[in-house]
Amino acid sequence: MSAESELLATNQAFYAAFREHDLGAMQDLWAEECAVACIHPGWPTLHGREEVLASWARIFEAGDGFDVQCVGAVPHFMGDAAFVTCMEVLDGGQLAATNVFVREAGMWRLVHHQAGPTQGAASAPRPEDTWN
Amino acid sequence: MSAESELLATNQAFYAAFREHDLGAMQDLWAEECAVACIHPGWPTLHGREEVLASWARIFEAGDGFDVQCVGAVPHFMGDAAFVTCMEVLDGGQLAATNVFVREAGMWRLVHHQAGPTQGAASAPRPEDTWN
Repeated sequence: MSAESELLATNQAFYAAFREHDLGAMQDLWAEECAVACIHPGWPTLHGREEVLASWARIFEAGDGFDVQCVGAVPHFMGDAAFVTCMEVLDGGQLAATNVFVREAGMWRLVHHQAGPTQGAASAPRPEDTWN
Repeated sequence: MSAESELLATNQAFYAAFREHDLGAMQDLWAEECAVACIHPGWPTLHGREEVLASWARIFEAGDGFDVQCVGAVPHFMGDAAFVTCMEVLDGGQLAATNVFVREAGMWRLVHHQAGPTQGAASAPRPEDTWN
């Protein structure tokens, strides 16, 4: 599997954990060696694995799984780190998101997530803008 | 200067360019070797240097410089990449922001920026959450 396929599969696994309210999967997805952060829409910035995972637990406890789909994911590589921009399509609309990953023990793991309100679709990246 | 000081100085230079509507400084701050992206609050995701810099030109043309201050910047290092979370304090309120950087020719340069609405202050990172 190419680095791009691995990265996008991990990004999709994050949204599967989100959709299914799977806290165990969410714990496995977030980095352990690197300090993590998270900015949920409208929330203050959260720092550290404990606080970030507690926020997911709180979101998951608030209700049953809900439909969140990730579309238009664009990978950007920076050596052993990477970020993905994508759109999150939810029942109530859509959010623009950034997911930052780092390679730990040969796996891509999340170090940061930010989602916020947006309008319209992302611009189409040109081939030269995707750095594989 | 330590890597942390250099990174935070570059993050502050980004806000100085933003505040002063300095498009030349903004051009110098964004990466050239790595594909860039940008998510302004409420905008669609922008991809590529040309489109991202055009968005800053459009923001700068819309009015005189305005007061934007960056507070509470927290650096996170991932080898030759890094991200900074911070709060942007503007006349109309505050935004939570993520700035992603990559090292190009010995300099930190921006590869991604996202800012979005937030409530309250960021949680205080614990010492072990800052990975220097």
